[in-house]
Amino acid sequence: VSARAIHVAVLGGGSWGTTVASLAASNAETTLWARNPDTVEAVNERSRNPTYLGDLPLHRRLRATTDLAAAVWDADVIVAGVPGQAMRSTMEAVRPLVRHWVPIVSISKGLELGTKLTMTEVIDEVLPGHPLGVLAGPNLAREVLAGYAAAAVVAMPDEHVARSIQSVFASRRFRVYTNTDVRGAELGGALKNVLAIAVGMAEGLSVGDNTRAMIFTRGLGEMTRLGTALGGQAETFAGLTGVGDFMATCMSPQSRNRTVGAELAKGRPIAEIVAGMNQVAEGVKSAASVVELAGLHGIDVPICCEMDAVINHGRSAIEAYHGLGRIPPGHERD
Amino acid sequence: VSARAIHVAVLGGGSWGTTVASLAASNAETTLWARNPDTVEAVNERSRNPTYLGDLPLHRRLRATTDLAAAVWDADVIVAGVPGQAMRSTMEAVRPLVRHWVPIVSISKGLELGTKLTMTEVIDEVLPGHPLGVLAGPNLAREVLAGYAAAAVVAMPDEHVARSIQSVFASRRFRVYTNTDVRGAELGGALKNVLAIAVGMAEGLSVGDNTRAMIFTRGLGEMTRLGTALGGQAETFAGLTGVGDFMATCMSPQSRNRTVGAELAKGRPIAEIVAGMNQVAEGVKSAASVVELAGLHGIDVPICCEMDAVINHGRSAIEAYHGLGRIPPGHERD
Repeated sequence: VSARAIHVAVLGGGSWGTTVASLAASNAETTLWARNPDTVEAVNERSRNPTYLGDLPLHRRLRATTDLAAAVWDADVIVAGVPGQAMRSTMEAVRPLVRHWVPIVSISKGLELGTKLTMTEVIDEVLPGHPLGVLAGPNLAREVLAGYAAAAVVAMPDEHVARSIQSVFASRRFRVYTNTDVRGAELGGALKNVLAIAVGMAEGLSVGDNTRAMIFTRGLGEMTRLGTALGGQAETFAGLTGVGDFMATCMSPQSRNRTVGAELAKGRPIAEIVAGMNQVAEGVKSAASVVELAGLHGIDVPICCEMDAVINHGRSAIEAYHGLGRIPPGHERD
Repeated sequence: VSARAIHVAVLGGGSWGTTVASLAASNAETTLWARNPDTVEAVNERSRNPTYLGDLPLHRRLRATTDLAAAVWDADVIVAGVPGQAMRSTMEAVRPLVRHWVPIVSISKGLELGTKLTMTEVIDEVLPGHPLGVLAGPNLAREVLAGYAAAAVVAMPDEHVARSIQSVFASRRFRVYTNTDVRGAELGGALKNVLAIAVGMAEGLSVGDNTRAMIFTRGLGEMTRLGTALGGQAETFAGLTGVGDFMATCMSPQSRNRTVGAELAKGRPIAEIVAGMNQVAEGVKSAASVVELAGLHGIDVPICCEMDAVINHGRSAIEAYHGLGRIPPGHERD
C-alpha cells in the first residue's frame, strides 16, 4: 500500500526554485508559482525555464501557475524560493491561504536588508507556528537539473518531519541527508556568500593554492565562530551546508559571489561589476549585515570586515589582502 | 637585548624538508641533513635544490651536510622531514646524538606500513620523552618557497613550546598558528591523502562541482570521525591541518594524490600510474592502513573503503563511484 500522495508548492521561478520543483515533481504532485507568465507557459507547455535554465528539461509532470492561491491552497509542503528581499511580502500573501500545520521549507539564502534576519526568521515572523526548516547544500542548479550527483540537507527541528520532507526531494542522483540544526544549516549558506568573494579575490590576485586554502579555512573559522554565536552548531558548519556549500561556491565558475571577488581583484569598481551582472550576488548585499551581526555578538571576522570595506567603503582588493597579512597569527582557534 | 640564538637541524632533503629549512634559516642558524651529496653541494654552493625545487633560490644562510652527527649535535630543535618509511631508521641513528630535552617537530605525513603508526608515534617509540609535535597545513612546497602567502600550524602539547617553535618558522608571508592538538594536526595530513584520491577521481569522471563538493565534505566527515576516534579534536579537522590541507591538495595540479585519482578515473591500472611517477603518492600506500584502523575502531569510512578497493583489489573507478551512490543517506552526522 503506498502512502497518501502529497502536494508540494514551490514559490519562486528562479533557477533554484524551478530545479527544486522539478526534483519534487518526480516524488509528489508539484506546482511551481512564478510571477512571470512566460515562465509559467514555458514550464506547462514545454517543460523548460529558458530564462534561467536554458534548454535543460524539467520533470514533465511539473505544473506552474501565476496564481498564488491555486499553488498553495492544497499544498501539504510549501517550499519558499523567492529572493531574500521578496520573502516577507510573499509570505504575507501566503498567510490567508494555508493551513497552520503545513511545513515550510526555505531554499533561499541571504539576510533581509535592514532587519538582518535570515529567511526562516522572516517566515516565522509572518507565519508563526508552522514546522519550518531549510533545504540547503552544495547545489548549483544547472548541475542538479542535468542529473549530476549532488547532496543536500533537509534541516527541520523535528527529525521525523525532516525524514518525511527528505523523501519529497530525494532521488538516486540527489542525496538528501537530514539534520535538526536549522539555524546552522541556514547560516552556512548566508555567510559563505561574503566569504566566497574573498576566495574569488585571492584567486584573482593569483596568490596560489596555499593562499586560497588559507583564506578558505580561516573564512570557515569566521563562519563557524559567528554561526555558533548566532545559535548554530559547530558540526553543521563542517558539513554539506557549511564547508560543502562554501567549497562548491569557491570552485564553480558559475558562482556569482566568486566572480565578484575575481573582478574586484582586477581593480574594477564594485558598481560597475554589479551593473554588469544579470542576477544579484548575495554576498555584496549581505556583507554589511554580517559585519554588524558580528559586532553585536563580539565576534572577530577580519575577512568579512575587509570584504565589507572593499564593497562599501572604497578599499582596494590589494589593500584588503595586505590588511589581512598584518594580523599576527596566534592560537589557531582564537 | 635579543634572545639567545638557536640552532635548527632539518632532516630530509626532499622538497618540503628543504623548503622548511630555508624558512628556518631566516630566523635561526639552520643545517639541512640530506643523504644525497649532490643536493648538499647544490645547497651549499648555489643555494638551490635542483632535484626537487628547480631553480627556486633557498635562503643564502642555509647550510647542508651529509653528516647526521654534524647536523644534530648542536641542534636546539630537530625537524624530522624524511619519508614515512625511513623515519624509524633515521630516528634510531639520531638517538645517540641528541640531548633529551631537544624538541622534535615532524613535517612528514603518512603512516608507517605494518605498524600503522603516525610519524610522531614512531618518533616517540624511538626517542621517548622529547617534546614532540608537528608543523602542518596547506603548504605546497614550491609556492611557499616562491614567497606566496601561506599558513601553517605548529602543534605541540605545550602551548609555550609551540610559541617558541612558531618563531623558528614564521615570516611575514608564512603565517604560523599554534595548536596543542598534535594528534588531530597530524592525522588530518595522513588521512587527507587517501581522500584526495577520491576527489581527484570525481574530477576525472567529470561529475561536476556539486559532486566534488559532496565527496570533499563527506570525506571530511570520515576524516573527522576516524580522527576523533584516534584521539584528535574535531575542531582541528575544521582547521588548517584538516580542511585546509585537504582543500589545497584537491585544488592543486601539483598534488600527487589528486593526480592518481584523476588517472584512475581514466581507467589506467594503479601499477602503471605509480610506475610513471617520480615520487610516491602517500595515499596509495596508506589506504589499506586507514581502512584497517577504521575497522579496529568501528568507524564507517565508505569513501576510504572504495579507494582501498580501487587501489588494492582491482575495483574500477566507476564501480567505486556507483558503490558510494548506493548507500542510503541518513542523518548528516551518522
